[in-house]
Amino acid sequence: MTVNGTKHNELRQLVRSQLELLLESSNLEGAKALLVPVQPVDIAEAIEGLPESMQVIAFRLLSKAEAIEVYEYLDYSVQEALIEEFKRQEVIDIVDKMSPDDRAKLFDELPAKIVRRLLSQLSPKERQATAQLLGYEEDTAGRIMTPEYISLKESLTVDETLERIRSLANASEIIYYLYVTDASRHLTGIVSLRDLVVSPSQTTLGEIMTRDVVFVHTNTDQEEVAKTIQRYDLLAIPVVDREDRLVGVVTVDDVIDIIEQEATEDIYALGGLQSDKDNYFQTSLVTVARRRVVWLFVLLLTNTVTGTIISSQKNLLQEVVILTAFIPLLTGTGGNVGAQSSTVVIRGLNTEEINDLGTGKVVFREALAGILLGSILGIMATVWAFWLQGNIYVALSVGISLVAIALLASVAGSALPFLFRSFGLDPALMSAPFITTAVDVLGVLIYFNIARFILGI
Amino acid sequence: MTVNGTKHNELRQLVRSQLELLLESSNLEGAKALLVPVQPVDIAEAIEGLPESMQVIAFRLLSKAEAIEVYEYLDYSVQEALIEEFKRQEVIDIVDKMSPDDRAKLFDELPAKIVRRLLSQLSPKERQATAQLLGYEEDTAGRIMTPEYISLKESLTVDETLERIRSLANASEIIYYLYVTDASRHLTGIVSLRDLVVSPSQTTLGEIMTRDVVFVHTNTDQEEVAKTIQRYDLLAIPVVDREDRLVGVVTVDDVIDIIEQEATEDIYALGGLQSDKDNYFQTSLVTVARRRVVWLFVLLLTNTVTGTIISSQKNLLQEVVILTAFIPLLTGTGGNVGAQSSTVVIRGLNTEEINDLGTGKVVFREALAGILLGSILGIMATVWAFWLQGNIYVALSVGISLVAIALLASVAGSALPFLFRSFGLDPALMSAPFITTAVDVLGVLIYFNIARFILGI
Repeated sequence: MTVNGTKHNELRQLVRSQLELLLESSNLEGAKALLVPVQPVDIAEAIEGLPESMQVIAFRLLSKAEAIEVYEYLDYSVQEALIEEFKRQEVIDIVDKMSPDDRAKLFDELPAKIVRRLLSQLSPKERQATAQLLGYEEDTAGRIMTPEYISLKESLTVDETLERIRSLANASEIIYYLYVTDASRHLTGIVSLRDLVVSPSQTTLGEIMTRDVVFVHTNTDQEEVAKTIQRYDLLAIPVVDREDRLVGVVTVDDVIDIIEQEATEDIYALGGLQSDKDNYFQTSLVTVARRRVVWLFVLLLTNTVTGTIISSQKNLLQEVVILTAFIPLLTGTGGNVGAQSSTVVIRGLNTEEINDLGTGKVVFREALAGILLGSILGIMATVWAFWLQGNIYVALSVGISLVAIALLASVAGSALPFLFRSFGLDPALMSAPFITTAVDVLGVLIYFNIARFILGI
Repeated sequence: MTVNGTKHNELRQLVRSQLELLLESSNLEGAKALLVPVQPVDIAEAIEGLPESMQVIAFRLLSKAEAIEVYEYLDYSVQEALIEEFKRQEVIDIVDKMSPDDRAKLFDELPAKIVRRLLSQLSPKERQATAQLLGYEEDTAGRIMTPEYISLKESLTVDETLERIRSLANASEIIYYLYVTDASRHLTGIVSLRDLVVSPSQTTLGEIMTRDVVFVHTNTDQEEVAKTIQRYDLLAIPVVDREDRLVGVVTVDDVIDIIEQEATEDIYALGGLQSDKDNYFQTSLVTVARRRVVWLFVLLLTNTVTGTIISSQKNLLQEVVILTAFIPLLTGTGGNVGAQSSTVVIRGLNTEEINDLGTGKVVFREALAGILLGSILGIMATVWAFWLQGNIYVALSVGISLVAIALLASVAGSALPFLFRSFGLDPALMSAPFITTAVDVLGVLIYFNIARFILGI
């Protein structure tokens, strides 16, 4: 079955509902036939959608090779459930054949007891590969790499290499790049399968390899790995250890997931949320509340400061009660201007678009934008305030405050992410909710002082 | 030079400063030697960092093959400047050899006059390829695909295929997948270079090709293309026209940029900004202000509603002026709770994590989270309000209002993105600034009514 990308959602849903119907009527042959032309990732999704009791039955319909591929795509919870349902030997067969990086990810999620049991039953080679990956810190190149790659000596000819590949190919997740190493396993060059195929058969790898190799270390942060692959348009990047010996490869498909995950982290930070690698919609309500309440509490505290400032101006407000009507407009607009500036700067820092401009230049530019926007909006606000109230002094206080607040908000919004970064913190922490709340506090202070001055109170 | 990912920033900076020094002292040979081991994308960045007068000189140091690669990585503004500096023939040589998808991107940015001139001077084959790409709508598969791929008949043997590849390889951006087509150019199967290399030499493509091909149409949205490549872990995806004939290929490196660009769009929407494909930090201040002011103005209008509501409660506020002190706390916290809910739902919709849950389930869950968070924060706020004011009725009004507002905010924040999507709009439009401002309006209404009830005014 060819799958048209635009229609794959509907197709997937069709496979899912059909599969359940066939299994309910115990038509196992029909179910088997249904799944034959379906892509592994889609089979995995269809199985996830089944009632738990049917998941094992559906999974057993697959051929062994297919089962391994599908298993890698399943959610951790389903992977774990299947492990418990399976006979010992079935589990080991599948887990033993998974790619080491996918297996390490699975082991991260499984209870320690099961991991120990599985590890002890893997073949020695696979056990060693997995233990090695699990030894690297989370979110590093070492943890996400696969230790399966093809490394060759540079004296090999093209023909000999092709021979080797034929005997090895099944063991290796990616063979689009071949790595050339010296006697002490140091990476000395790289040959793409493409270069290999187009070269005369007696040429040696040493003659056709590229010596300008881009690589990362096992302890390189995964975000850095992703950026490097993206920058150099690679399909995979070699990973070396502290002694510069080749130990693994990170492939582009894993990198795409990392880029999406990092973007989610940024987006969550901008929304005032702690992020986590779990699917948000599968975590418990208590976890959700716990992750949010800390941030809300910090913002609540800042808001109490605003309240305290307002309550300290009781006399002013009793005299000119209409002043309160404009507080939400001023703090709200200030917050929005600040959120815009901080969003632009945070994203710019994280995608490295901003790198070449200095802090000063960026903040100055945002300050100008703040004054410009503040002036436009200030004029509108003055007109509206005058229409609502008929008091030109109050209206002017509102308009002038708005310009000052917009300037303050854009400077704070653009400067604070830089400040955070210079302390080695994630600039996204200095995000919209925080800026908004900070601008509230300073905004009312500015407003009351300008109003007192203009109204002469 | 091997480039360690973690250190590439420093290296790039070094190359840049060295290059400028060498060019200033007219040491062209030295500059040439400096650039030999540097990756094309890094050379492009070094050239971008040079004063304009030196950019052409630096570019001329490159070999022709290198020049083409480097040119593709340059910013549009530098590409355009170089076109104007160059002699006619130099330009045509480079532009003619660019990959058609990169050339189409360049032509999108260049003034129409230059595009016409360049188009007319390209070789007929390249002209046709470019014109074809430019004919597809922006942000579709047709626009981002490369028309260079290898398509073969299924009767070909492995050996014959390898022969063909050797003669074609330079013309094709990617040869990791070979496409098998029938007499009317319909896509019938796919053979990876890997499968080809490991197969016996007399096998035909028909025997080894995969018939389950995932493809997209020329008018498929680029975001959908990216998601499909990501879902199926592909290195490239074939693009077919309305008659299902193969017309091009989208490669994974372009997809990574699209994923980042789409994430930026989401993040900008969440920050209340219109996004654009330009680098934000290179657009003019007026453009920046124009893109932001519309959104700010809409939010300002909503804020004036809040103000009008407050001003309509003049009597209440004159009587119990301290009530105003808690307005920022209530609207601020409500806005933050709403922002969290909308952020989670918007990101969930855009990454398709949320797909299988219904609207009702998600909103219900967020409502529960809202009540839970509102209760925790409401108790804190009541205590603080009592401490600040000593009036238990006012304190209770604040606490109870906070629970109601948090519930409202979480329901609005989670439901509105679904509503927007069901109208076919981007859910990210219903983002934090909008929710925040909407919650302001309803929040003060709730607060005043609860206060009137409890205080008996």
